[in-house]
Amino acid sequence: MADKAEKMKARLPRGFVDRTADDIRAVDKMMRAIREKFELYGFEPVEQPFVEYTDALGKFLPDQDRPNEGVFSFQDDDEQWLSLRYDLTAPLARYVAENFETLPKPYRSYRSGWVFRNEKPGPGRFRQFMQFDADIVGTPGVAADAEMAMMMADTLEAVGIARGDYVIRVNNRKVLDGVLEAIGLGGEGNAGRRLAVLRAIDKLDKFGPEGVRLLLGEGRKDESGDFTKGAELDDAGIATVLGYIESGEVADNEGVHELAQIRSLIAAAGYDDGRVKIDPSVVRGLEYYTGPVYEAELLFEVPNEKGEIVRFGSVAGGGRYDGLVSRFRGEPVPATGFSIGVSRLTTALKNLGKLDTSSVIAPVVVLVMDRDTESLGRCQKMVTALRDAGIRAEMYLGGSGMKAQMKYADRRGAPCVVIQGGDEREKGEVQIKDLIAGAKAAQEITDNAEWRESRPAQFSVKEDELVEAVRRVLAGQAEDRTA
Amino acid sequence: MADKAEKMKARLPRGFVDRTADDIRAVDKMMRAIREKFELYGFEPVEQPFVEYTDALGKFLPDQDRPNEGVFSFQDDDEQWLSLRYDLTAPLARYVAENFETLPKPYRSYRSGWVFRNEKPGPGRFRQFMQFDADIVGTPGVAADAEMAMMMADTLEAVGIARGDYVIRVNNRKVLDGVLEAIGLGGEGNAGRRLAVLRAIDKLDKFGPEGVRLLLGEGRKDESGDFTKGAELDDAGIATVLGYIESGEVADNEGVHELAQIRSLIAAAGYDDGRVKIDPSVVRGLEYYTGPVYEAELLFEVPNEKGEIVRFGSVAGGGRYDGLVSRFRGEPVPATGFSIGVSRLTTALKNLGKLDTSSVIAPVVVLVMDRDTESLGRCQKMVTALRDAGIRAEMYLGGSGMKAQMKYADRRGAPCVVIQGGDEREKGEVQIKDLIAGAKAAQEITDNAEWRESRPAQFSVKEDELVEAVRRVLAGQAEDRTA
Repeated sequence: MADKAEKMKARLPRGFVDRTADDIRAVDKMMRAIREKFELYGFEPVEQPFVEYTDALGKFLPDQDRPNEGVFSFQDDDEQWLSLRYDLTAPLARYVAENFETLPKPYRSYRSGWVFRNEKPGPGRFRQFMQFDADIVGTPGVAADAEMAMMMADTLEAVGIARGDYVIRVNNRKVLDGVLEAIGLGGEGNAGRRLAVLRAIDKLDKFGPEGVRLLLGEGRKDESGDFTKGAELDDAGIATVLGYIESGEVADNEGVHELAQIRSLIAAAGYDDGRVKIDPSVVRGLEYYTGPVYEAELLFEVPNEKGEIVRFGSVAGGGRYDGLVSRFRGEPVPATGFSIGVSRLTTALKNLGKLDTSSVIAPVVVLVMDRDTESLGRCQKMVTALRDAGIRAEMYLGGSGMKAQMKYADRRGAPCVVIQGGDEREKGEVQIKDLIAGAKAAQEITDNAEWRESRPAQFSVKEDELVEAVRRVLAGQAEDRTA
Repeated sequence: MADKAEKMKARLPRGFVDRTADDIRAVDKMMRAIREKFELYGFEPVEQPFVEYTDALGKFLPDQDRPNEGVFSFQDDDEQWLSLRYDLTAPLARYVAENFETLPKPYRSYRSGWVFRNEKPGPGRFRQFMQFDADIVGTPGVAADAEMAMMMADTLEAVGIARGDYVIRVNNRKVLDGVLEAIGLGGEGNAGRRLAVLRAIDKLDKFGPEGVRLLLGEGRKDESGDFTKGAELDDAGIATVLGYIESGEVADNEGVHELAQIRSLIAAAGYDDGRVKIDPSVVRGLEYYTGPVYEAELLFEVPNEKGEIVRFGSVAGGGRYDGLVSRFRGEPVPATGFSIGVSRLTTALKNLGKLDTSSVIAPVVVLVMDRDTESLGRCQKMVTALRDAGIRAEMYLGGSGMKAQMKYADRRGAPCVVIQGGDEREKGEVQIKDLIAGAKAAQEITDNAEWRESRPAQFSVKEDELVEAVRRVLAGQAEDRTA
């Protein structure tokens, strides 16, 4: 045992958190619903490991202001750099490129998993978080993008978001490219400024039109005094971009045609009833998108950190990334896909009261009255009999007296406890104490006497009737819950 | 698109692997069975993140011969060292220490997840692998250890290992400590040599008694010529240790008493029928064990890398680690737990033909005969109708002709395809081609004509009967599978 003076402090690095039982069970259930929907759409699971060569992941993270570009990296013993994945798309691109010949094409796949960002953590912003992705690789047709937008809508409904409480907004980077070309930002040399414009537009939800205007021009100072440099457009350029965002009007180009086709496919499937909408303000912040982009926005309102009432906002987003797989293959491999922010969606469902908090029944606790090996053996036998009957059960393993044991059972939310003292043992009996009957009796039951007769809070049975008696207690409690 | 000449190679770092759909589904199912058994025993899920402070994890890995001690580490921007977890026990110890006041005690918890070892990868030896752990923290009583051993047995049966094909072997480090004291290896100063002796004994399965004798003495040279330094016991010491392993006979001490109590609890629950056995050769390689240790061994035989027939061996192991949580708290916090090697267990089940390979039905594929937006819209509508009816379905999204589309459907294992050419469209009909009926017909059916009538391989229906017709095809195929 360590000396008190030199003991180590138990603490987590910033931006990492532990997950409790309720959270794990609720998120698992939500993710099962997502998986079922993706499977319904014909997608198959595939998973890549957490570690990849740093150069294979590429540098596609937005808003990097730290030297290591937001990625956790370390050197292998052959001096090559490895990184923890920062999303699920870059590893998938590596996987598809490596296994291209053997995969069915177009290749529909899905995966969920933890990703890591070496960023400054903040409220609701973690350095380890979970994404759930779906992708179609190997087709340039925008029917794939339309499919993705519709699957987003179905998935939100599957996890419990009501129709009308969300919208899938779709746009096309190619349309935006036309606008940018019109204001003189075409060509390789302007790639950086084009990205600055896209990221400015992407902030519309957050900062409003006036904020976007500043970011399109000289730049914007936030409340803390931090200055974000702008895209440095002139007034005419700013007016053109803002005009497009407001009206969606733009000269005819390939992107406009693609959007028309997406609109028509969505109408054919009946998703043009407000579930999926074309929206010129959607751009997505990532550099690698090359065509349609799409975003799932939740429309209900919540208070933000400052107490202002705002729309909940984006919980998933994606788009076409025709260049990512090609990096490895030297031939075009078109692809489109999206990512659900699992924590964001979990928070949304919590806000709506739709997150399924656990309905798992706590274990029956067999109390331990004597600590000699023989008595322990008898308790162990009872626990085993209960488990063999499929009933969650445990023997109290602590070292304390009756009061501590009852407190433990209470703390665990145990439905009942089983007790065998010396008297009962001699008679070959056990006592069962129904912990929930006791609580209910005071609260809800009017004809207490009659009820107590049918559901006594504490009673004795013969040892060999233990399982049957516990089963009756549990059934009675289940009935009360549904009543 | 990248130039062919400068394209990047798509490859994974050594020791990391991708997971395919069959693997993901089979392992998920196996893990659900494990989880259910742990829940039955009253355990609750809790999860820690992948990254911890390096000092909080401690240095408890066996067989380290690399400078960074087998752990992936990197420095945070405040200069503190972080590491990827190398097991699930060290993070749990940190968690319990940090949340000690609010947890019910004894605290039963379980967790599964990926862990990382920065080691030289080899056959079946990865740098990322999955463990599934259960622990009871807060009780010194060996009833907890007995419970763990029995839960191991139940868990193996739950995933499909037959009774008789496994044994849970239990021993106690305190018994071994008595033996070591008797040969003069007591006291703090001999901790290193004691560990060397334990690791020598731990190799009994691998190298046999002669190998252990060498490791207890000067050391052992393996076939590749690599020399492992031994514990340097004298002949009398070696004889004492080997004598104990063979007979289990030892002077009376606390460890012997604890083993007797475990034996008695196991007998009370009926697990002394060969499922759980006391075995003096079990030691476990980890330094931090302080009392009972236990190991799940599979008894059936498989060929090893050299083609020799050997027992499959260990798939799970654990023990009592009373010092791990105390490191943080400066007070005794006794604990016991075990870890299942998920990949090892998966391999075992594969060997036994017990790994549930996927029974998921592949999606119905709606072929695309014309690529104008209107035709695509009609196909989209059919797919949506099928999905709304809960049938896995997808529209073919590739760019190729009929032959490529049929090849794709075949590759996917589609149960049937839906086709609407110009003729059918005019008649308001669709064709359905049953891909599995076609394959079965040739193989198994004797009265082919009659069967073909009831299950035609290709037929037309009215558009609004599509869902019903596909449902019939799927039902027919399901019947064939169970027949």
